[in-house]
Amino acid sequence: MSWSPGRKQENHKISRELFVLTYGALVAQLCKDYEKDEEVNTCLDKMGYSIGVRLIDDFLARSSVKKCRSYSETADMIAQVAFKTYLGVTPSVSCSSAAGNEFSLILDKNPLVEFVEELPAERASLCYCNLLCGVIRGALEMVHLAAEVTFLQDRLKGDAVTEIGITFLRKPEDRKYKRS
Amino acid sequence: MSWSPGRKQENHKISRELFVLTYGALVAQLCKDYEKDEEVNTCLDKMGYSIGVRLIDDFLARSSVKKCRSYSETADMIAQVAFKTYLGVTPSVSCSSAAGNEFSLILDKNPLVEFVEELPAERASLCYCNLLCGVIRGALEMVHLAAEVTFLQDRLKGDAVTEIGITFLRKPEDRKYKRS
Repeated sequence: MSWSPGRKQENHKISRELFVLTYGALVAQLCKDYEKDEEVNTCLDKMGYSIGVRLIDDFLARSSVKKCRSYSETADMIAQVAFKTYLGVTPSVSCSSAAGNEFSLILDKNPLVEFVEELPAERASLCYCNLLCGVIRGALEMVHLAAEVTFLQDRLKGDAVTEIGITFLRKPEDRKYKRS
Repeated sequence: MSWSPGRKQENHKISRELFVLTYGALVAQLCKDYEKDEEVNTCLDKMGYSIGVRLIDDFLARSSVKKCRSYSETADMIAQVAFKTYLGVTPSVSCSSAAGNEFSLILDKNPLVEFVEELPAERASLCYCNLLCGVIRGALEMVHLAAEVTFLQDRLKGDAVTEIGITFLRKPEDRKYKRS
């Protein structure tokens, strides 16, 4: 769970509108390619995973990234630094388990759906933003944190907010290490 | 050729790395979907067109956008405002025809290919960034400017620079209007 500073970071700020529209084109293409929503969701998650695996290098190179000492700090880092940097929004974070390994990122406004009115009736099970879950999962894996990341609520599906659930998976080695 | 200010613009700045990687996922998916490079290029151009048609509203709403009085001013606006805003780079512009309707946008560095080493041998005819041509074409059409937009040089194909050619198409109505 260590975040080390890396290469000097250039300033690469852009407007997010082109990104949001390009993401929409990607989802539309996958909906053409796959009949079942679950297949689209899986594909978006896999694509996101590959992106997260590469994006983590960029993320760790940023000067504002400090070492995280707990799952809680890691969840805050994702919300306050990663989301802010890459999507221009800061979700609120809540811990949703006594064990301290389950967190929710809650987005009042989801920039990725800015141009999406609603899901078509035949696409009711589509997790439109599932790429994000994959990105988080892939990036965490690169810092040796296994996690399950899924959408728990989605405003596109009529929920009041958009909520991404992150469950950090305690690995057998971790327990062994803590015992010793 | 009029650019009027519109809705108040919020600050929606993001890092471009997530965009660049997501764009890569889109191109990779299209390469899975279509065997021929030409089909991928056409698809990227069409997607870009749809994006440009929507992005123009966002663009016109920006305070820095002034009315253009010539093709030359329009080309400069695309390079200095649109590229800067949406991709974080400013291409140089050159006029390449005595008639004054052909322009080149020259990019020393193309952010969209930041994570691309080179095109695979079997994809030698792929215009990796063809979405951009479609975006420019679609956006121009929304301000009543018909144009052909294509890649003339591409560093991914071994050229020294990346060059996008824009040819403004003089419409019969234009000539009629000018005569009257």
